[in-house]
Amino acid sequence: MIKARVTVTLKNGVLDPQGKAIEGGLGALGFEGVESVRQGKVFDMNVATDDKKAVEKSIADMCEKLLANTVIEDYAVEIL
Amino acid sequence: MIKARVTVTLKNGVLDPQGKAIEGGLGALGFEGVESVRQGKVFDMNVATDDKKAVEKSIADMCEKLLANTVIEDYAVEIL
Repeated sequence: MIKARVTVTLKNGVLDPQGKAIEGGLGALGFEGVESVRQGKVFDMNVATDDKKAVEKSIADMCEKLLANTVIEDYAVEIL
Repeated sequence: MIKARVTVTLKNGVLDPQGKAIEGGLGALGFEGVESVRQGKVFDMNVATDDKKAVEKSIADMCEKLLANTVIEDYAVEIL
């Protein structure tokens, strides 16, 4: 079994109102110096195989098709 | 300026319907062997300081107070 983590983040330049809200919230709670917050998603997966190369390719495919919106999001695949 | 990444994931045993839906979706798209998917959140932050120790402490504090629900979620702070 292979464990993988996919991280999906907004591309630079794409507005992130959720991140902005968190930034505001942190300021309101008294945390100083937070210049920017951007929120993304992680997916932790278990895949039933031992072929790392194939899994990496297959997960990249999953990202293109379902996990990420590649118009506005980047993704990174990490095999753990 | 320090860049940090906070990863918030559901604790083991906490139901993750969103992860289950993604798992089902991947199966429907023909991806085989995906045994489990769990979804979490990432926060990428820029903090205006150069004191790594202080930032780590301050971000852990942010997680406890705002970024994570520590009843059902774990968090990890990574200084980049």
